[in-house]
Amino acid sequence: MGQSFTTLRWEERSLVLLDQTKLPEQEVYLVCTDYRMVADAIRRLAVRGAPAIGVAGAFGVVLGAFELIQNPKDFFAGLEAVFAELAGTRPTAVNLFWALDRMKKVVVARRAEAPAVVAAALEAEALCLYQEDIDTNRRLGTHGAALLQDGMTVLTICNAGALATVAHGTALAVIRAAVQEGKRIQVVACETRPLLQGARLTTWELMKDGIPVTLITDNMAGYLMQQGQIQAVLTGADRIAANGDVANKIGTYSLAVLAQAHGIPFYVAAPMSTFDLTLPDGQGIPIEERAAEEVTWLRGQRIAPDGVAVYNPAFDLTPARYVQAWITEKGVFRGQAGKIKLMDEGSTD
Amino acid sequence: MGQSFTTLRWEERSLVLLDQTKLPEQEVYLVCTDYRMVADAIRRLAVRGAPAIGVAGAFGVVLGAFELIQNPKDFFAGLEAVFAELAGTRPTAVNLFWALDRMKKVVVARRAEAPAVVAAALEAEALCLYQEDIDTNRRLGTHGAALLQDGMTVLTICNAGALATVAHGTALAVIRAAVQEGKRIQVVACETRPLLQGARLTTWELMKDGIPVTLITDNMAGYLMQQGQIQAVLTGADRIAANGDVANKIGTYSLAVLAQAHGIPFYVAAPMSTFDLTLPDGQGIPIEERAAEEVTWLRGQRIAPDGVAVYNPAFDLTPARYVQAWITEKGVFRGQAGKIKLMDEGSTD
Repeated sequence: MGQSFTTLRWEERSLVLLDQTKLPEQEVYLVCTDYRMVADAIRRLAVRGAPAIGVAGAFGVVLGAFELIQNPKDFFAGLEAVFAELAGTRPTAVNLFWALDRMKKVVVARRAEAPAVVAAALEAEALCLYQEDIDTNRRLGTHGAALLQDGMTVLTICNAGALATVAHGTALAVIRAAVQEGKRIQVVACETRPLLQGARLTTWELMKDGIPVTLITDNMAGYLMQQGQIQAVLTGADRIAANGDVANKIGTYSLAVLAQAHGIPFYVAAPMSTFDLTLPDGQGIPIEERAAEEVTWLRGQRIAPDGVAVYNPAFDLTPARYVQAWITEKGVFRGQAGKIKLMDEGSTD
Repeated sequence: MGQSFTTLRWEERSLVLLDQTKLPEQEVYLVCTDYRMVADAIRRLAVRGAPAIGVAGAFGVVLGAFELIQNPKDFFAGLEAVFAELAGTRPTAVNLFWALDRMKKVVVARRAEAPAVVAAALEAEALCLYQEDIDTNRRLGTHGAALLQDGMTVLTICNAGALATVAHGTALAVIRAAVQEGKRIQVVACETRPLLQGARLTTWELMKDGIPVTLITDNMAGYLMQQGQIQAVLTGADRIAANGDVANKIGTYSLAVLAQAHGIPFYVAAPMSTFDLTLPDGQGIPIEERAAEEVTWLRGQRIAPDGVAVYNPAFDLTPARYVQAWITEKGVFRGQAGKIKLMDEGSTD
């Protein structure tokens, strides 16, 4: 299960990103030597997935800090602007803000020190976030694997895989862990319009790992459930409110409603950093709307009439009552009377 | 509301079809002078939509008959082969078989007559089917319009419009009739992957008529319902069993489940010729599976890894319990205890 690609890595003071807009045709790496390049890569989804953009954002701060060392008088003010630009890239996934907050705490703690010292501390913190993400996802996968039985077919949406994290993935970490335990798991990947992360990315990384995957269009999910072909739905998350409401890729809510109608369990896999405990429920989560052209153009081809009105929310909100379990690195949480609690069978390492 | 295009027309002993694979970029007409061209056009969806392929199939028989006049000895045996080829093009929509049956009855009734006389009678019958489709859809639209109130936003899938019929459409005939009555109706069109009939065709014909339409990807439907933005779902049908189960474009079933979960009425608009009373329920309806490339390629561009497994059912089955009303040219039927019956408010002209 060794990964033959890296989603992102820190190398010679540059952030090297696998450009996901080019997959699956081309495996091209972007070398970001500047925080503006990182912000741009996040905005145009060259790097995407809640945990991955958190770590990428942290390295963006490091690049900004190293640049600002040249001009020590403006260092801290300059850093504020770096944080603001990176925070302004994408509104829904909370992991980005969580990672930027971790980086800000380093700045606050070292406000009295020389810029070069602060920059070095920021680099150390970003590397720590990077390593934590790998460990978190591995643990999360092991916890979640207990929910999957041998022979199951699991439906997923978007890409909650290694490509959405530093490594392993979230939803796909669970599948990888189950497969490593010897369970035969089949994956059905919803293609995930408009940007086809399921068709382009989830299939690509599962095929690389030799895990059986079948691609469908998003509107086929209900029919497969009706035909008894799906035993679980497993997705990632971009933000989870204190009550367990989940913001995730557009289409997730429809899958949750369909799963409930068919008596199929709906699981969400995400690191604890995806929980936003400042929000009592999902109503406060901003849902990013993206450009109409994502819907009306596909890979340079127009697919709808010129000038047609388009609605393009990138995420939706799944109320906690549709979620059977939240799979995290701390164990598996189950819903109970509006609150979520760690399930007995989940360990709490 | 005069249509500025024709889906199909019979002109100088040729069937002229608007090539729907080229829309919305190009408005190109195919002139079919041969029944094999008609069969090919149906197979590759240059003409599509249950009522339209019924009428196109009938004219295919006419073209076959005129060709066979040249060889009178083999006329009736040759006609059998023409019927078989046309019937083999697409399995799910019943209107094709219904139209071919109507044409077969003409052959049977005139078996003693000269081939040229039979061919002329077949031409007359096809023209009759053509005119009936226009009248049927106009009546169906008027009946259905009673279900739509001023200010409603109606969600639809695929194209159940003028492009799916000789004129007016089925689901879109209802919307056109409501708009003509002065009601302000907004349409939300699901793009309808894999072949994008919603994005390419429904938007195109509604924009031509000046009816407000917003395009979404299929996986956004549930979110819009959750946000209270949809007041009715209205689709066409490819085959309806005696108990009211509906086969229609893949994704219809998901919309029906989502509509029920949100308390939104789900209506099906189709001519009586779409009812297959030989089937007690939908289980017997064959669901066409189409090539994987429809999912993995889009307008000449690969959008998924080479060799990925794909499942591509073109239709799905919506059980009658999800359908609030079946809108036909004979009036509006409502479900009641597993049977469907004409609703009181629907007239029966």
